[in-house]
Amino acid sequence: MEDIKEDSGKTLVELTTDRIIDYITSRQLKPGDKVPTEAEFLDRFAVSRGTLREAFKVLIARNILESRQGAGTFISEKQGIPDDPLGLTFIYDDQMLALDMIDLRLMIEPKAAQLAAVNATEEQKQALIDMMKVLEDRISKGESYVAEDGKFHQLIAESTGNRIIGNLTYILFSSIEKNISLTLNNLSVSNTLYYHRRILKAILEGKIFDAYNAMTNHLSLIREYMIKADENSQNKIEEQS
Amino acid sequence: MEDIKEDSGKTLVELTTDRIIDYITSRQLKPGDKVPTEAEFLDRFAVSRGTLREAFKVLIARNILESRQGAGTFISEKQGIPDDPLGLTFIYDDQMLALDMIDLRLMIEPKAAQLAAVNATEEQKQALIDMMKVLEDRISKGESYVAEDGKFHQLIAESTGNRIIGNLTYILFSSIEKNISLTLNNLSVSNTLYYHRRILKAILEGKIFDAYNAMTNHLSLIREYMIKADENSQNKIEEQS
Repeated sequence: MEDIKEDSGKTLVELTTDRIIDYITSRQLKPGDKVPTEAEFLDRFAVSRGTLREAFKVLIARNILESRQGAGTFISEKQGIPDDPLGLTFIYDDQMLALDMIDLRLMIEPKAAQLAAVNATEEQKQALIDMMKVLEDRISKGESYVAEDGKFHQLIAESTGNRIIGNLTYILFSSIEKNISLTLNNLSVSNTLYYHRRILKAILEGKIFDAYNAMTNHLSLIREYMIKADENSQNKIEEQS
Repeated sequence: MEDIKEDSGKTLVELTTDRIIDYITSRQLKPGDKVPTEAEFLDRFAVSRGTLREAFKVLIARNILESRQGAGTFISEKQGIPDDPLGLTFIYDDQMLALDMIDLRLMIEPKAAQLAAVNATEEQKQALIDMMKVLEDRISKGESYVAEDGKFHQLIAESTGNRIIGNLTYILFSSIEKNISLTLNNLSVSNTLYYHRRILKAILEGKIFDAYNAMTNHLSLIREYMIKADENSQNKIEEQS
C-alpha cells in the first residue's frame, strides 16, 4: 500500500486523481482499456472510499475515464479532451466567431492537406475514400452533412503524421459543432463536393501543391461566402430602417 | 421553479450542469464573477441538494467554476479550458512530440505575429514591451525563462484580434509546460533574445512582413536546433555501442 502525502496545497482528491493518471500513463493504457475496480485501487492507495469515488468522478468529468453500466470503468474514447476545450462557450459576442475559426483553419489545414499527401497510410487513404462516399450520399439525399464534413477534415488531420494536429483538429471540430452554427446553402454544397474531391485526389496521388491549393481554395471560398452573407444581412437591416 | 426533464439519455447531474452553464452564458458572467449560492440554485432548479453538489463538482473539475474557501463559488479564471486540453498526457511515445508542436506553431504563429502587427492595441503593445523587459531580466540573471517566453508568445496571440487564436495558444503553451520538456542552452537563449526583440519591433512599427519573417526564423531555428540535438544524441548512442 502506497501512502499519499499532502503537499503543494493539493487536496486529497486532486492527489488521488494525479495518482490514477500516473497509473494509466505508466501502463500506457489506451482508450477502451478497463481500469481496476474500486477495491483494487483502495488496496493500492491509502485513501478512503469516498476520496477515491470523488477522484473517479473528476476523471469522468474530464473525459479521461468513462463508466459503463454493469461493465466497470474504462479509459474514455475521448482521450481526456473535454467538451468545449477552446472555452468558446464563454466568448459571448459570437458574430465574428465563425470568421475567426475559418481564419485559424486557413492557417493549419492547407499545410495539413500537404502533409497528408505525403504521409497518409493506405488505411488512412481508404478511410478518406469511404468518408467521401458517405458525404456524397448524404448530399445526394439532401440530408445534413456537417458531421461528415468535419470527419473528412479530421481524417486528413490524422493522416499528417503529426499527432498534435490530429488532436487539435478534433478540438476545433467539436468546438464548431457545439458553438458555431454554420448555415450552408447550395453554393457551399457544390464547393464542398468539388473541393473535397480535389483534395482527396491530390492526397491519393501524393500531389502536395494540389492538396495545399485545393484546401486553401475550399476554405477561402467559404470565408468569402460568410462575408458576403454577412454583408447581405447588413444591407437588409439598413433597407428596413 | 423550473423543471428539469430527462431526455437524450443524459443523467440528472449532466442536465443540471447544462442548466448552470446556460445560467452563466445567458447572463454573460465573466471570470471572477460570483455565482449564486447552493440555496439559490435549489430554488431555481427542481433538483436535490446531492444532484446540485455533483453538478458543481463536475463544473469545478472542468475549470468552469472555482470554489474559494469561505467566499463562495466563482467563474474560474481558467475559462473552462482544462489542464491538458490537447490530451497529450495520453500520447505516450513522446520522442517526436516537441517536433510536432514546433511544426504546428510554425503554421500558426508567423501569421499571428503578422496580425498582431496590424491589430495590437496600445495596451497590448505596452504589455509586450513589459514582458520583453521581464524576459531580458530573467535571462541576464541566468534564471529559467520558459514561462515568460510562453507569455510573450501568448500576448502576441491575444493581440491578433482573433479570439480563437488567443485561446488556442493558451492551450498550446499549457500543453508545452505540462507535457513537453524543452531543453534550452546558450544557442536558444541568444535566438530568443534576438528574435523576440525583432518580433516586438516589427509589431510596434506595424511591419507585417518583418513580424512574419522574424517569427518564422525564430521558430525554424529552434526546430533546427531540436533536430541537431536529436542527431547528436543518436551519434553518441552509436559511438557507445
